[in-house]
Amino acid sequence: MGFVGLGIMGTSMARNLIEDGHELVIHNRTRAKAEKLAMLGAEVATSPREVAGRSDVIITMLPGPPEVEEVLAGENGLLKGVRDGSLIVDMSTSSPLLAQELSRTANTRGVGMLDAPVSGGDIGAIEGTLSIMVGGEKEDFERARPLFEAMGKTIVHVGAAGAGQTVKACNQIVVALVIEAVSEALVLGSKAGVKPEKVIEVLSGGLAANKVMEVKGEKFLSHDFAAGGKVEYHRKDLGISLAAGREYGVALTVTALVDQLFGTLVAQGKGGWDHSALITLIEEWSGAR
Amino acid sequence: MGFVGLGIMGTSMARNLIEDGHELVIHNRTRAKAEKLAMLGAEVATSPREVAGRSDVIITMLPGPPEVEEVLAGENGLLKGVRDGSLIVDMSTSSPLLAQELSRTANTRGVGMLDAPVSGGDIGAIEGTLSIMVGGEKEDFERARPLFEAMGKTIVHVGAAGAGQTVKACNQIVVALVIEAVSEALVLGSKAGVKPEKVIEVLSGGLAANKVMEVKGEKFLSHDFAAGGKVEYHRKDLGISLAAGREYGVALTVTALVDQLFGTLVAQGKGGWDHSALITLIEEWSGAR
Repeated sequence: MGFVGLGIMGTSMARNLIEDGHELVIHNRTRAKAEKLAMLGAEVATSPREVAGRSDVIITMLPGPPEVEEVLAGENGLLKGVRDGSLIVDMSTSSPLLAQELSRTANTRGVGMLDAPVSGGDIGAIEGTLSIMVGGEKEDFERARPLFEAMGKTIVHVGAAGAGQTVKACNQIVVALVIEAVSEALVLGSKAGVKPEKVIEVLSGGLAANKVMEVKGEKFLSHDFAAGGKVEYHRKDLGISLAAGREYGVALTVTALVDQLFGTLVAQGKGGWDHSALITLIEEWSGAR
Repeated sequence: MGFVGLGIMGTSMARNLIEDGHELVIHNRTRAKAEKLAMLGAEVATSPREVAGRSDVIITMLPGPPEVEEVLAGENGLLKGVRDGSLIVDMSTSSPLLAQELSRTANTRGVGMLDAPVSGGDIGAIEGTLSIMVGGEKEDFERARPLFEAMGKTIVHVGAAGAGQTVKACNQIVVALVIEAVSEALVLGSKAGVKPEKVIEVLSGGLAANKVMEVKGEKFLSHDFAAGGKVEYHRKDLGISLAAGREYGVALTVTALVDQLFGTLVAQGKGGWDHSALITLIEEWSGAR
């Protein structure tokens, strides 16, 4: 099988596949990143096209929509070399509409396609505990399931082509808005003289409880914003959510505002910080800390 | 002991105190609401002032800041009749600054005061499982603790006078913004053709997980918006949060926007609906359902 895109996430996912017994043909734009996996027995190909020619199933894990389009539909892309009856599984976070378009193109060439973005971050990728949300044909999903099980824990077939990307877009909306919610609450508490750990303690016991506060609580308190989920990636994802909202005609009023706040963080040079650093913006505006 | 304010919440809370063995002197503006508790042995007083004159500890559970100010500091208010060494416990959701002001006034008359708002709604009040967030002096908190334990489960002393109200204001911010987050995500999913139950299933397994989605998931799916936590009360609470933000100088950018959305619901005549009905606004704007 093939694997294209060996960033932080992709490398860990590919390693889990190798450890599960799969023989991998891999490719990465920067070849050096492929060497570690080559030492584990993976064969390095010179282009996505070559990967496709040597694989029955090909997984891609790329930064975003432009790279997905290039790697699949570009000059030396997968679709140029892909064999009849193959399956392409794009696990990047990308656009639902692009996923649908690429699925149609693949299908007309007798190739199956799934969009299967993940959540769970670098830790989930290393430990093989990712959540994987999958759009596409049911039989293609069943075909890829053993591979998903080597990389993830929660694996859900959410609908037709594009549905996986749609659910990921929904996920990133909720995470972003919850970070903003907790941030506004903690700054209000602090400026009114209440210890943030007390706010978190009480809120965790009721309807305000949320996973962001549970997982990122320590970051909000310590202001150690080593990522974690980076601001710049989350901002990119919100761009995908908003573009989907525009296409499907959805009034994403608050998402649009929070996207601007993430953009402000990026402009401040905090793109590499953990996304919980959104609180620093409210603190600056409020003269806190 | 005394109890003033026998709405839906107050009646259940007072009943739990009676069942815990306390002898209550009660008052309510509409006397009829006091009759049920009178049948359980509570004595009905004609004014807050009279309640104060016959009690060592007095609990108030009122609609909001204007009523709190009237019942405590008004013509026939508690502070007119209160005895030296008494303790007033305001469990209404009210303003942190008003709580501080009333605490100072009470203290100068040798009377203790706690602000102790609750979360958990009518069910929590009936079952005696409320979360109670308490601001004020530690010894006053310890004095009232046995009473809190008859009404609630999670009981936290969060700081000095006003701190209880501050934490409640924080709580209502987070709940409101999470409702908006889940609503925008579900409408985006629906319009893109993904079943909302799939969105909830996947999001519940990761960083987007939250209590609102867990508790209100069925309401979002069925659109049965019987309250629950009413839109009009939550909107009132957000008014308190925003006023606190104004006083303490906190940039509550997104809270301000979501407050306007709740206001739109009230203007549409949905004030009595459950606050998860926020999703209907996004659906209308998006031509969904």
